[in-house]
Amino acid sequence: RKKYRIAVIPGDGIGKETTPEGLRVLDAAARRFGFDLELTHYDWSCETYAQTGRMMPEDGLEQLSRSDSVFLGAVGWPGVPDHVSLWGLLIPIRRGFDQYVSLRPCKLLPGSKSPLANRGPEDIDFYVVRENTEGEYSSVGGRMFPGTDREFVSQQSILTRIGCDRIMKYAFELAMTRKRKKLTSATKSNGITFTMPYWDERFAEMAKNYPEVTTDQFHIDILCAHFVQHPDWFDVVVGSNLFGDILSDLGPAVAGSIGIAASANINPEKTHPSMFEPVHGSAPDIAGKWVANPIGQIWSGAMMLEHLGEKAAADAIVQTIERMLAEGGPRTRDMGGQAGTVDVGKALAEAV
Amino acid sequence: RKKYRIAVIPGDGIGKETTPEGLRVLDAAARRFGFDLELTHYDWSCETYAQTGRMMPEDGLEQLSRSDSVFLGAVGWPGVPDHVSLWGLLIPIRRGFDQYVSLRPCKLLPGSKSPLANRGPEDIDFYVVRENTEGEYSSVGGRMFPGTDREFVSQQSILTRIGCDRIMKYAFELAMTRKRKKLTSATKSNGITFTMPYWDERFAEMAKNYPEVTTDQFHIDILCAHFVQHPDWFDVVVGSNLFGDILSDLGPAVAGSIGIAASANINPEKTHPSMFEPVHGSAPDIAGKWVANPIGQIWSGAMMLEHLGEKAAADAIVQTIERMLAEGGPRTRDMGGQAGTVDVGKALAEAV
Ligand SMILES: CC(C)[C@H](C(=O)O)[C@@H](O)C(=O)O
Ligand SMILES: CC(C)[C@H](C(=O)O)[C@@H](O)C(=O)O
Repeated sequence: RKKYRIAVIPGDGIGKETTPEGLRVLDAAARRFGFDLELTHYDWSCETYAQTGRMMPEDGLEQLSRSDSVFLGAVGWPGVPDHVSLWGLLIPIRRGFDQYVSLRPCKLLPGSKSPLANRGPEDIDFYVVRENTEGEYSSVGGRMFPGTDREFVSQQSILTRIGCDRIMKYAFELAMTRKRKKLTSATKSNGITFTMPYWDERFAEMAKNYPEVTTDQFHIDILCAHFVQHPDWFDVVVGSNLFGDILSDLGPAVAGSIGIAASANINPEKTHPSMFEPVHGSAPDIAGKWVANPIGQIWSGAMMLEHLGEKAAADAIVQTIERMLAEGGPRTRDMGGQAGTVDVGKALAEAV
Repeated sequence: RKKYRIAVIPGDGIGKETTPEGLRVLDAAARRFGFDLELTHYDWSCETYAQTGRMMPEDGLEQLSRSDSVFLGAVGWPGVPDHVSLWGLLIPIRRGFDQYVSLRPCKLLPGSKSPLANRGPEDIDFYVVRENTEGEYSSVGGRMFPGTDREFVSQQSILTRIGCDRIMKYAFELAMTRKRKKLTSATKSNGITFTMPYWDERFAEMAKNYPEVTTDQFHIDILCAHFVQHPDWFDVVVGSNLFGDILSDLGPAVAGSIGIAASANINPEKTHPSMFEPVHGSAPDIAGKWVANPIGQIWSGAMMLEHLGEKAAADAIVQTIERMLAEGGPRTRDMGGQAGTVDVGKALAEAV
């Protein structure tokens, strides 16, 4: 019987409410599909920061490295600046564990509603593959002539050959597993003329290894427009850290699933644990009311099981979510229902 | 009787077909509202490049500087790389003439169709104000260790105090002229931690001068999602060069007007000519067939008249476009009609 060690970090706000439901469904899947999950809970959060001055202990990454995966709720709370909360917990895990793939499904689930007119589940079903370690989110930059009229700030965007090639390889491999085998690259080489032409160059180079994959590329401005006008064009979309960030919010938005979208921060070589987290944040406005929708968390749990090698269990969870939505099972407020976080979690756990 | 000197650059592809229609309508407006337009035509384009090796003559900017405004069609053609065509004509004009404001209306016109469900003209009517000279489109960058595994490229994003303050001032002033007086700032200070926090800082500083303007700010990822989910939230949106570029394509896309969107590249102090161009490009696929929709060009002409001080004439053109669309006047293919470029231009010119 297989056993997986999971580090659980509920984090802040509704993360504390959705992770237990994620775990409830994971536990049901473990029992049904015959594997064990060994959980270690970490209370790292903005509260810890208030008490200790740190989002996580100094040896935080070392502690997490003993697990197979990290299951995260949400990070961030009003009053704690992002450079403390996000850069003290979320980003260090992504980078420290070289989780260079951020994978986010954009899927119109049956029974949920897209803001687009006349679009059904057959029209919106693609993945955004985002580079998760370099690019526009760099640590090189600074400010000059502070407080004067000549003041300026500068930040480098960095693309490395290693960074480009490995994310593109992942995206091509993913495209190969899909029925349409289509990969779209997000670029802006007409305006950003040092980094993005290089991105295009590496994309063209990698494409040579995958003659079966149909490729195209769009500048990010018109690509965003196409997401709205022709979401059916897309199968797998690969983008830099910033472009992938934008597209992986816009994709779920056009699919009407931004409140329930899931994401995986993957280290494909498994030299370090990967991390799974819903796309929604800590949602201070509804935190503490137990009305948050746990589906994003539960769906992230399914992505975790798939990464761990339990594909049947992962599929069962996703199918259960889809079936429950289609059949009008319990829904939280954001989906027009009256159910609480726990109701939805319990219903899904039972159905799995 | 006032006279304005207009430099006309049809450029490439459908630009050659839409500019004459733009001029036809401008001419009608000039006659009705009593001013003169003195046109100078420039054939600068990818064709010129093929013949002369340059997109425009060496003293191109000097020639244009004798005009009050530049009226541009489209730049770019297959076979001529962007760094030649765009960076040889479009970008040098924007930067050389310090057209630091790119202004783009996002408006659901009556009679045209948004891809969003249940959205009418009252829901989508805002402006994107884009910084047009610095930011992510910088000229500082390069490549190191070429051809090796250590290869990387780097490009700086630069925000200056002068650049931020003047674009924000323009945006606040524009917001002051609007009924809702609301200004949204596009940021990404949680991920891009040198430049974007500075953007936020300057925005907060400028806001102090405009207590009547309601402000908010969103990270670009969720802001793109909000454009799709809640376009009615927005009145004026200000963004950096890249974020403004993205939002000013996404905005017209959600309004269903991307094929007919207009844009102005403005030097507000009028120390240099401003430039007016449709958002669509040269459209090689339909160029030469005279089926291109000239409305974007004509609408850009209206923005030019407004900038020149002929507000009544500008309003008349925009209202005529709206009325003709609402009343089912002649339409080009992209709007489901059968009319040619010239038919639409003539109908609008007559109606004005
Ligand atoms: C062609 C390109 C360089 C340009 C830009 O990004 O500025 C275009 O997308 C635009 O928005 O005018
Ligand atoms: C919180 C922020 C730094 C983060 C990002 O941009 O990576 C978030 O938007 C995400 O997409 O996970």
